[in-house]
Amino acid sequence: MEPKELDQLLPFVLKRENVARYENGVVYIGDRRKYPFEKDFYRCDEVEDVARAIEVMVTQGGGPWVAAVFGMVMAAKKSENKSADEMFEYLSKAKTRLTNTRPTNTALARRLDDALLIAKEAIDKGESVEQTLLDWIRETRDKVYENYEYRAKLGASLVDDGDGILTMCFAETAFILAMAFAKQEGKTIQVFTPETRPYLQGARLTAPSLHELDIPVQIITDNMPAHVMSEGKIQKYFTAADLITMDGHVCNKIGTFQNAIAAHHHSIPYFVFMWGADFKSPDRASIDIETRDPAEIRACRGVPTTIDDIPAYYPAFDITPPYMVSGVITMHGILSPYDLNRHFSKDKI
Amino acid sequence: MEPKELDQLLPFVLKRENVARYENGVVYIGDRRKYPFEKDFYRCDEVEDVARAIEVMVTQGGGPWVAAVFGMVMAAKKSENKSADEMFEYLSKAKTRLTNTRPTNTALARRLDDALLIAKEAIDKGESVEQTLLDWIRETRDKVYENYEYRAKLGASLVDDGDGILTMCFAETAFILAMAFAKQEGKTIQVFTPETRPYLQGARLTAPSLHELDIPVQIITDNMPAHVMSEGKIQKYFTAADLITMDGHVCNKIGTFQNAIAAHHHSIPYFVFMWGADFKSPDRASIDIETRDPAEIRACRGVPTTIDDIPAYYPAFDITPPYMVSGVITMHGILSPYDLNRHFSKDKI
Repeated sequence: MEPKELDQLLPFVLKRENVARYENGVVYIGDRRKYPFEKDFYRCDEVEDVARAIEVMVTQGGGPWVAAVFGMVMAAKKSENKSADEMFEYLSKAKTRLTNTRPTNTALARRLDDALLIAKEAIDKGESVEQTLLDWIRETRDKVYENYEYRAKLGASLVDDGDGILTMCFAETAFILAMAFAKQEGKTIQVFTPETRPYLQGARLTAPSLHELDIPVQIITDNMPAHVMSEGKIQKYFTAADLITMDGHVCNKIGTFQNAIAAHHHSIPYFVFMWGADFKSPDRASIDIETRDPAEIRACRGVPTTIDDIPAYYPAFDITPPYMVSGVITMHGILSPYDLNRHFSKDKI
Repeated sequence: MEPKELDQLLPFVLKRENVARYENGVVYIGDRRKYPFEKDFYRCDEVEDVARAIEVMVTQGGGPWVAAVFGMVMAAKKSENKSADEMFEYLSKAKTRLTNTRPTNTALARRLDDALLIAKEAIDKGESVEQTLLDWIRETRDKVYENYEYRAKLGASLVDDGDGILTMCFAETAFILAMAFAKQEGKTIQVFTPETRPYLQGARLTAPSLHELDIPVQIITDNMPAHVMSEGKIQKYFTAADLITMDGHVCNKIGTFQNAIAAHHHSIPYFVFMWGADFKSPDRASIDIETRDPAEIRACRGVPTTIDDIPAYYPAFDITPPYMVSGVITMHGILSPYDLNRHFSKDKI
């Protein structure tokens, strides 16, 4: 599908130009903190602005790497009159600053490494670094969106007419597109999206995105999925994953595991969208669950939900074991979680 | 335990005088909508004020019947100079108004029926209706608190030193007292209380109550219980019940069932405090789950969590099947959920 055609199918927050864009030395990042209450862009005039924006969660999911590589374009523009060596040094510093915004985001670090390599080649050839990076970003994004599109089609193939579908958090482009394709195929669906406390990605991002595409959606609170299942209203459960270990454990936003247990209890299949293989995460023991500031549990959109001196606990992710996963949706098809290691290894049997 | 002694063990919201009290023709109801942010009382000068207070959820759980019977005392005071017939008519009207505040609360209706009978006897005998009702309320409350105390002691007996304990919503006096008794017995415990969206009873009532009693408590969001269980931090799960059917199905605040599934998955026993037998609820099919205004799902303490035009779904209760219930804590001991019908029937085998 042509980029423009695909963008037509996407809701506001996921359209390429609204995730992040570069215009004459300025980077604009779609501000997901304000969505859906405001459709606002965070303007960055300096590389430092881009870094800060990523740090303070202006964007998340598939957004940070795009914002960061546009930050590299900005750095190229700002240093275009420097000598080759000075320009490379300037770009290297920008890369380091941008990489440090999210120390655990390996995808971000890899894209920035690539960007610096591309820039180095352009410098060596005496070509415009700004334009070379922009061309590379466009091509890279197109490939990424082709990947979304392919996995979304696999996802849509798992949806039956009349299905009720549970998701969690904001499963982004692959999931939203899967629902859009299912609708295009004439399937009637009803999505249930838990609000996903404390940050409310389900209520703020998933539900408005589906609603914008005229896909029936209902917000529920995070304590409701099992009950809705018991009413027979849910037939499939789909999420994205922050990480899938090579032995099939799914690490995703807190609550994903609890829903998976409820789905398993009600014999509802659970499908998870996988980005790519990460051999640095062989098994469950290799995952370190991030715990965040308990103060975030004691508030909702800045309003206190209790008094300050009461302790709270905020593990940000959880882990679903492979026996609860019915299929891992990858560029190579819908795989068993037990086959990832073999499938992605170089010398597979 | 003497009433005063027991009250000493209770947190602010559950102390008798803070639930509701009568003073010289005025009823004061502890305002649980404002707790824990403010310790405020809702002043009622008319029976209609008491009725409105119950309707707008100034109090809940064990509060409404107490407020309502004090409303009857107020009605007696206001009609003390009327003829016997006029006074009875005045009290009958007050009873009807107060009963209609919560059409599905059978306990409230039963207490108000009793109050009118007691009043009628006093009228017939020419005694002070106000004082007769006040004496009856004191005796009735004392019995209710003795019942709490007994079941709380049974609950405490189920707690082992070092236990992590999950609860849901606000399981009120029996549960809070059980934790207080466990602490008194020298057991070290750690309670986890899900915030219980959308109304936040866990964050606003349970956690502050336990914290006030110096019982270690941590608030979590409703998507976290299964993960906390997987970390080995929870050994027991306790809740109250809005209703337990005679065949052992537990109807309680939404989320109770989802936690019970997660507890069952992790081999964690689930215990439920039962008030008394209700033969009008023989089985699961006899339960009608109340669905409430979806607008409540789209906000948290009045602050929007998404945009208004997105559909939401708000089932207020759920049902946990008996095979997930390890014990029902009653005045007759810790019963199997499968033995309630036989145990409470008049001609038990």
